[in-house]
Amino acid sequence: MNTDSHFAFPTIAPLDEALRPTLQAAIDDKTKPLGALGRLESLALQIGLIQRSARPELRRPAMIVFAADHGIADAGVSAYPADVTVQMVRNFAAGGAAINVFARQHGMALEVVDAGVRVPPGVAQGLVDCRIDAGTRNFVDEPAMRREQAEAALAAGVARVMHHAAQGTNVIGFGEMGIGNTSAAACLVSRLTGLPIAACVGRGTGLDDAGLARKLALLERALARHADAVEPLDALAALGGFEIAMMAGAFLAAASQRMVILVDGFIASAALLVASRLDPKVLPYCVFSHCSHEQGHRALLEHFGARPLLALDLRLGEGSGAALAYPLVVSAVAFLREMATFGAAGVSTASATADANDGADASAR
Amino acid sequence: MNTDSHFAFPTIAPLDEALRPTLQAAIDDKTKPLGALGRLESLALQIGLIQRSARPELRRPAMIVFAADHGIADAGVSAYPADVTVQMVRNFAAGGAAINVFARQHGMALEVVDAGVRVPPGVAQGLVDCRIDAGTRNFVDEPAMRREQAEAALAAGVARVMHHAAQGTNVIGFGEMGIGNTSAAACLVSRLTGLPIAACVGRGTGLDDAGLARKLALLERALARHADAVEPLDALAALGGFEIAMMAGAFLAAASQRMVILVDGFIASAALLVASRLDPKVLPYCVFSHCSHEQGHRALLEHFGARPLLALDLRLGEGSGAALAYPLVVSAVAFLREMATFGAAGVSTASATADANDGADASAR
Repeated sequence: MNTDSHFAFPTIAPLDEALRPTLQAAIDDKTKPLGALGRLESLALQIGLIQRSARPELRRPAMIVFAADHGIADAGVSAYPADVTVQMVRNFAAGGAAINVFARQHGMALEVVDAGVRVPPGVAQGLVDCRIDAGTRNFVDEPAMRREQAEAALAAGVARVMHHAAQGTNVIGFGEMGIGNTSAAACLVSRLTGLPIAACVGRGTGLDDAGLARKLALLERALARHADAVEPLDALAALGGFEIAMMAGAFLAAASQRMVILVDGFIASAALLVASRLDPKVLPYCVFSHCSHEQGHRALLEHFGARPLLALDLRLGEGSGAALAYPLVVSAVAFLREMATFGAAGVSTASATADANDGADASAR
Repeated sequence: MNTDSHFAFPTIAPLDEALRPTLQAAIDDKTKPLGALGRLESLALQIGLIQRSARPELRRPAMIVFAADHGIADAGVSAYPADVTVQMVRNFAAGGAAINVFARQHGMALEVVDAGVRVPPGVAQGLVDCRIDAGTRNFVDEPAMRREQAEAALAAGVARVMHHAAQGTNVIGFGEMGIGNTSAAACLVSRLTGLPIAACVGRGTGLDDAGLARKLALLERALARHADAVEPLDALAALGGFEIAMMAGAFLAAASQRMVILVDGFIASAALLVASRLDPKVLPYCVFSHCSHEQGHRALLEHFGARPLLALDLRLGEGSGAALAYPLVVSAVAFLREMATFGAAGVSTASATADANDGADASAR
């Protein structure tokens, strides 16, 4: 495979740490015991660093769902027929899926991108045509896509994010739909992290020991077939999917635009893994929204050293976990902007008035 | 102590399980893999049972914060002086505390109840005077309150909830503020569950081994002093607080009104423990919102067999965890009401089209 990239990488700035002490002091001066808002405090700090502001602001939250089909779905790795991808895209367009409900609840702009669904879903409001091909090839037998297709998909993901950036979006989540895409994600995670494929594949719904062994054998064969695809773009082309490639590009673009990025579940995290191998500076812009039921996701979160906000046993995709976590991001910004300080509210602080050794109740007053 | 109660217990109906199969079928018919919304699905089911409806609806969400002072605070069990209780009540009234921010974010009606703050906080919008006394007595030496005070507090908690019920509220959370109240909560939890007091007291912020031993010894002395206070109302009077007693009454009233009840952290859970010993039928109406950083809370949640929605290392009180979890409750109701069914959306189901043994990817498609 060609290892020269024709993809124009977005430029990502490292987080500027200069503001950290100011932000920490602002958080500590709020009328609450030190650290009492727990992980919302580190989230507020992260968002302040991303926006380079002690008064961060979330504007025009957006969610992009990338959909595509996978050749490997024909090998019987999913309980659902490949038709379900296009059916669900139409369901998104009609407003009836879970992500529609949660995006409406939180006022997030929702866009659905056809990255390469087998059957074109037709024209509908909020549905964007970025079709690379009518689904990937079955990567057990051949590369899922050509290298130039992978680069075109990355570029399309970048373009979608730039479209939202131009409308003022500074917080964004990415979701996906694609029957068979946990197989692609599992292979990418195994290849890029070195984790054994067995640690990256879940039992799914009702898969027995024999079924799991069958699927494992299939993915092991695929990994062996593409043993030379070790560089991130080569692995993406050999083992990925069009929606995964587009998400990877979208992650890079969102970080280049200094957006707060909501990372959804297993597939989204696998796309982020690809993106982070292309440019690790993407990671500090990411808020890990939830830990899904899929065992490969837990392994990948550990690999990132990430501790997600929610653990609700979700295993839906579509960006649903990212949307569900969004109000916590809003809360983190809101407390930093709106809470009174000790001085302004006339509330006594702990340190000024008591010995730390008497602080037994400070944890919950 | 007098064991006859003059408190008029609200009547709580057990949940009617007749609707369970209908609700489960409605949840399973939504366009998502079976069970893919994880704990939101059991939450939707619970709310449907509470409201006896397959199309539940959340109306006029409310949060009541009960505040009171504790005699034991003078024994040096808190890093904060008792003055902070009234200072924070004024901060609530001025809109500057964390609970103000989160209640505003989620459109929850916020009421602050003076259950017995040492210094009367004065008159302010949204502040309700239900003062039982100017704080409790130090329960290391004498009962925290008289039995009739405990009953008056329970009745006041009932009255506040009935006030909100009359305005149409059907989902409610309770918070608290009271320097020293983790000591009261720890003693109540130890007495009513039989857990050793050491398992109910946290280290708090910066408490060293000697400090922890000192506090433990103090609370052990208090428990020994009130060894006869084993019935729930006796324990509440001997070891409780006015805000805890009012919350206990509020829990019972909210269940009697078939409200969805958001349970906050350690203090709120201790008040629920008292309420559940008075009438265990309160528990099925409760949604456990978060697991706080306080070790006593984890022990108590285990005692209830509860798995809270959030685990964000909060240790603030004020109902903040309940408010932060509220959007997940909204999401549970929203997906049940708004998502399309497989039939209506024209989406194929798994079981009709594939062998379950091929379902490896069903968990995340």
